Amino acid sequence: MKRSNFFLPTIKENPVEAKINSHRLMLRSGMIRQSSSGIYSWLPLGLRVLKNIERIIRKGQNLIAQEVLMPTIQDSEIWKKSGRYNDYGKEMLTFTDRHDRELLYGPTNEELITEIFSKNVMSYKSLPLNLYHIQWKFRDEIRPRFGVMRGREFLMKDAYSFDVTPESAIISYNKMFVNYLKIFHELGLKAIPIAADTGPIGGDLSHEFIILADNGESEIYFDNRILELSLPDINYFDEQDINDIVSKWTSFYTAADDKFNNDEFNKSVDKNNRKTNKGIEIGHLFYFGQKYSTPLKANVNDKDGNNIPVYMGSYGIGVSRLAGAIIDAYNDEKGIIWPESVAPFLTSIINVKYNDDKCRSFCEDLYSKLQKLKISVLYDDRNEGPGTKMTEMDLIGIPWQFRVGPRGISNNVIELFNRKTSKSTEISISEVDNYLTKLFLDK
Amino acid sequence: MKRSNFFLPTIKENPVEAKINSHRLMLRSGMIRQSSSGIYSWLPLGLRVLKNIERIIRKGQNLIAQEVLMPTIQDSEIWKKSGRYNDYGKEMLTFTDRHDRELLYGPTNEELITEIFSKNVMSYKSLPLNLYHIQWKFRDEIRPRFGVMRGREFLMKDAYSFDVTPESAIISYNKMFVNYLKIFHELGLKAIPIAADTGPIGGDLSHEFIILADNGESEIYFDNRILELSLPDINYFDEQDINDIVSKWTSFYTAADDKFNNDEFNKSVDKNNRKTNKGIEIGHLFYFGQKYSTPLKANVNDKDGNNIPVYMGSYGIGVSRLAGAIIDAYNDEKGIIWPESVAPFLTSIINVKYNDDKCRSFCEDLYSKLQKLKISVLYDDRNEGPGTKMTEMDLIGIPWQFRVGPRGISNNVIELFNRKTSKSTEISISEVDNYLTKLFLDK
Repeated sequence: MKRSNFFLPTIKENPVEAKINSHRLMLRSGMIRQSSSGIYSWLPLGLRVLKNIERIIRKGQNLIAQEVLMPTIQDSEIWKKSGRYNDYGKEMLTFTDRHDRELLYGPTNEELITEIFSKNVMSYKSLPLNLYHIQWKFRDEIRPRFGVMRGREFLMKDAYSFDVTPESAIISYNKMFVNYLKIFHELGLKAIPIAADTGPIGGDLSHEFIILADNGESEIYFDNRILELSLPDINYFDEQDINDIVSKWTSFYTAADDKFNNDEFNKSVDKNNRKTNKGIEIGHLFYFGQKYSTPLKANVNDKDGNNIPVYMGSYGIGVSRLAGAIIDAYNDEKGIIWPESVAPFLTSIINVKYNDDKCRSFCEDLYSKLQKLKISVLYDDRNEGPGTKMTEMDLIGIPWQFRVGPRGISNNVIELFNRKTSKSTEISISEVDNYLTKLFLDK
Repeated sequence: MKRSNFFLPTIKENPVEAKINSHRLMLRSGMIRQSSSGIYSWLPLGLRVLKNIERIIRKGQNLIAQEVLMPTIQDSEIWKKSGRYNDYGKEMLTFTDRHDRELLYGPTNEELITEIFSKNVMSYKSLPLNLYHIQWKFRDEIRPRFGVMRGREFLMKDAYSFDVTPESAIISYNKMFVNYLKIFHELGLKAIPIAADTGPIGGDLSHEFIILADNGESEIYFDNRILELSLPDINYFDEQDINDIVSKWTSFYTAADDKFNNDEFNKSVDKNNRKTNKGIEIGHLFYFGQKYSTPLKANVNDKDGNNIPVYMGSYGIGVSRLAGAIIDAYNDEKGIIWPESVAPFLTSIINVKYNDDKCRSFCEDLYSKLQKLKISVLYDDRNEGPGTKMTEMDLIGIPWQFRVGPRGISNNVIELFNRKTSKSTEISISEVDNYLTKLFLDK
């Protein structure tokens, strides 16, 4: 993409309405614009990030689940059947259609997926089954704030598992646990699983996944060694393997405010490993057995011919929230520092001297080359000074900047700047191809 | 994907509520399920089709426009400003949030995109600009029917162009015209452009794109030679080229009921070329100049320093509707006949004899090979008779079926069946690789 054609309305000053880094930086970098309170439009730069996050989640989920797509609008009736109609209070946006039928904008989809299951699956032979979708949800927050971190219309990935026994349901839960670790790893994040309350979803087993960020919404207490764990290759067909990974990750002490116990923390964690930090929730697992399948009659015949309600769990990842959470975890005074996997562009080209023919021609060639190699690139081809261009690339957080200037070109070198390390490397023009291969293609 | 694990609830009987082919076949093939009146969930098979349609539209649009994503929920205020608040009547779903602020589920996005433009673009130097998004819309149809063809919640691609002069705006319109021809071609469709009324969008220039289908909603009269036109390679930077293509396609007589004139038809079209058929609308172009930019103050400074409202157009494609429209255009008594570009799977493997070790082993190898080559495949590995399997593959419309049976295997041949031509070819096992390359990879 050439910067001169790209719809990227960046802002120099910090918007007064934004109180946290992610909100400030998403507005300043032209990723989003508010359209109503807690409701945002995603501009091209922001949408590229959102799509990258979606892509990584989808790739992970497809290993253990099948994608469907439920609508945003649901009938209130199924919420009355499940007994949850009042559980979200005013956060659930309800309204009537022209025929006075009550509808609602789904805040979550347990009822609807259970109904789909009940009408289409009859036998244990179709189980275990795991279905997910990525769809917009609405929760009418009383005081929307912090941009996409606490908005009203938000994009969520929610998966739902169906099993014929509680034991098999726990295996489905554990597969999702491990799948989440992998997804967050691919997003460039260190996620900490924490035993959690179940809230309006219900059930008796639940974990949140938290990433550390100084403006996080809750205080997290944890054994620091959990951040050092490395994730092995995962074989989802090997239950023992899956259970071992879950056991390992849950063997370290972790707690949020609500369940924190200081004595336990001191007793179970060596002093040097005790850590506390603010954290942001990015995912949540729930096991709730027959809570929805019983009232909504989602039964199957088991091996012995008994007709029983299935055992279910649900599993969410805040997709649009992640765009903000990643920024809150990775930024500095200059702007965003994107992990490579979610960056809107992996590379950028800064033409330091617009009017210099040699610089421009080198930039154009490099731009074509990157495009041919399918390495995403934002080329700042505008007639602006180098300071303006570099400041903007720092703000929007592109991981790699190729800086092309007349002095370098006359010495047959260009500069390659890394946003995360702030290190600049001079590379000889004859070495550019090797660098591209090494940095971007061999991964 | 292996059929034994795939969530594909097909139905043998025609559902009584479905009156047209696409609705019947989408239900029977397990593509969709109704969740409320006019509101559908997309099951895995249907979602694969929807994603293919989206992918082709996105690829086309990215050549001339930038993708954004506006929310589903809008503030009523901007509709009052534009003067359109009452134009959709009861079809526009409005409601109030917990703070009694009136919101609505967007039936279209002229107001919102114009507001985004007005706050972020100031100068003619940023123009022409063309922004599109693919997002769910809602229109509260009084009598939803025909499945996704006339549903209430539907997926739409809508693009919006911004220009500093009417002349430049017409060029943007014509680029979109040509882009639509190309997109519909890639979807496997012959789309006929027809001059149209502008309805609640407004403006003075508009074209619909129609495909022929016997259960279409309106009668189309046209010069048959328009179906023979072939689309040249398109250079979007060559205005003359673009205008020539539009002139060529609009030089043939086409009209729907509302604008049909029998005398004109007889006079301008040779008797042998006069055709009439039912048709389905799949896309629509509108040019409406300053209709929204004036009340919403979407102004830019032009070259001479005058601050003027921009000239706009909007351009829609019914994404979810297309899934149904393609079925209505391509089906027979056995089921759906997908064009290859949108088929949920390009190929299928039918193991004719489940218990035969040689058949099963051949099928497994072929399945692995297709997956490695990234040729999408649905492998029916179930313990069911060949009739059941073939009937289902015909119903769901997979373009190519590899049929593997014990007699064939003992003679070193398998059968390759084409859904569209109903032709079956015996291919020698040693030739399979060549066939794969020729049919699926060289394209």
